[in-house]
Order: sequence, then structure tokens, then C-alpha cells
Amino acid sequence: MFQPRFVLCGLFVFVGCAHAPTFQTKENEAILRVLHQQADAWNRGDLEAFMEGYSRSPELVFTSGGKVRRGWQAATDRYRKAYTDKKAMGALRFSDLEISPLGPDAAMVLGRWMLTDTPKTGGGVFTLIMRREAEGWRVWHDHTSLDPRTRP
Amino acid sequence: MFQPRFVLCGLFVFVGCAHAPTFQTKENEAILRVLHQQADAWNRGDLEAFMEGYSRSPELVFTSGGKVRRGWQAATDRYRKAYTDKKAMGALRFSDLEISPLGPDAAMVLGRWMLTDTPKTGGGVFTLIMRREAEGWRVWHDHTSLDPRTRP
Repeated sequence: MFQPRFVLCGLFVFVGCAHAPTFQTKENEAILRVLHQQADAWNRGDLEAFMEGYSRSPELVFTSGGKVRRGWQAATDRYRKAYTDKKAMGALRFSDLEISPLGPDAAMVLGRWMLTDTPKTGGGVFTLIMRREAEGWRVWHDHTSLDPRTRP
Repeated sequence: MFQPRFVLCGLFVFVGCAHAPTFQTKENEAILRVLHQQADAWNRGDLEAFMEGYSRSPELVFTSGGKVRRGWQAATDRYRKAYTDKKAMGALRFSDLEISPLGPDAAMVLGRWMLTDTPKTGGGVFTLIMRREAEGWRVWHDHTSLDPRTRP
């Protein structure tokens, strides 16, 4: 008599379990895609496309070396000034990326960056807060620090 | 005839509006309390109480100067080794604290730290991810970077 209930119950458990990792995997993939697109854009010298990974917002915070810079435009201007061409940009590689969901529309990414083939060679660690915006996942907060051992 | 409905409707709107900022203010206050308790604990040389602000979890990440350290115990051991007594700890001050909610149980805190009255004098910027745990809000991720201009 109770058999159908158990079947239904089992189905819910199955669907519930199957749903959670699928959603998570999808979000993780979407976030990784944004970061990979950023690295690819950087490596072909396309600063415009690189900046598309950042939230186009005055709320965007980029902090590094004790300085706090605010706003997408200011971040773009700073990159343009510091990396005038493909040669100055060099080769960027992200590694050890770990994504942690923080809520339905926010996630953290911890990772390492390495910049080579440029006078600005160096590397370190970043913590990104990504937010789900109308356009997709975007970096909304970027705390980048330098590993002094990576400076030539 | 419809008057009671409007009154009820007005009441819901009023309660709804009053609830949102009150909740936010309450969470902000709870988060600030944790950070102020940490600074107070540090300044009386009480490392145990300082560490209570961190998530007592192997998931805790503390990253600084290109290094990534994991787990509450490792963070505690490192602090104990680096700051053996009150004299070594000196005086810690947090400032410019900005709290951004990231979801119902997560928030980011951007702020500045300054350590004085110790041979380890220095300061910089931190990005904290705080998570609401059973015990209250706890620092779950700490990315601290040094402002080289603060080194004597």
C-alpha cells in the first residue's frame, strides 16, 4: 500500500541530488569561461575584451599593493596606461582556480596568476568576488597580491 | 467596505519596508562587532580570542604575500609563532570598513589594517569573506596585502 509513496520519495531524493551538482557545475563552468576568455583576450593583446570580464560598474573594486581603485572606467584607464601594447602585456596564465559559491548570485574565486614575456613579469594570488549580472558572471571585486618570489 | 483591506495592505507595506533596512543594519552591526572584538583581543594580547573571529574550519583560507594557508589550526599556529607575546603583537587598528552583502549568509568586508608599536609595523588592505555560521558571522576567507608605503 505504501509502495508508491516510497517510489515518489525516492524519485524526489534522486532528482534533488542530481539537480544540485548539475546547477553547480553549470555555474562553475560559466565562471571559468569568463576567466579563460579574459586570459585569452589578454594574450592576444585585446584589453577591451579582457575588461569585459569585469563588472561595468562604478562599484567595481580593484585592490592591489595597498591601493584601492574603484570603477570599471578607472580600472580600464589604469590598464591602458600600464600596458600600452601586446608586448607590454606579455603572457597571462591563471592556475589553481577554486570556485566557492557564496549565494545564488555570488561566488568567490581563489587563484594564482602569472605574467611572463614582459618587463612586468611577476605572479601571485587573487581573490575574486564574481556576481551574476544581466550579461552573465562578472568580476565585481578583485584583490590581487604579488608573490615577491616571482619577481625576477 | 474595503477599508480594512487597505489598512492591512498598508500595514504589510510598512512592515516590509521597515524590515529590510533593519535586517541589513543588524547584520552589519553583527559583522562589525566580530571585527572590533578581534582588534580588541589583539590589543590586549589575547590571540585565542582574536582567532575566535575566524571560521574554526579546515576550509578557512588566509592568503598574503603570494602564500595560501588553509585551516583554522594552521592560521592559529602561524600567528602564535609570529607573535609570541603582547609586545610582538603591538597595536592593531582596522579602518575604512565597507560591508557588502553577497547573499543571505555571506558578506564581503573591504578594509584597511594598521599594525604599530611592534617590530612588525605595517599596514595595508584586506578583503574578508564572512559567513554566517552556527556561532555567528565568522571570517571564512582573508586576503591581506601589505601597502609597501607603510613599512618604516
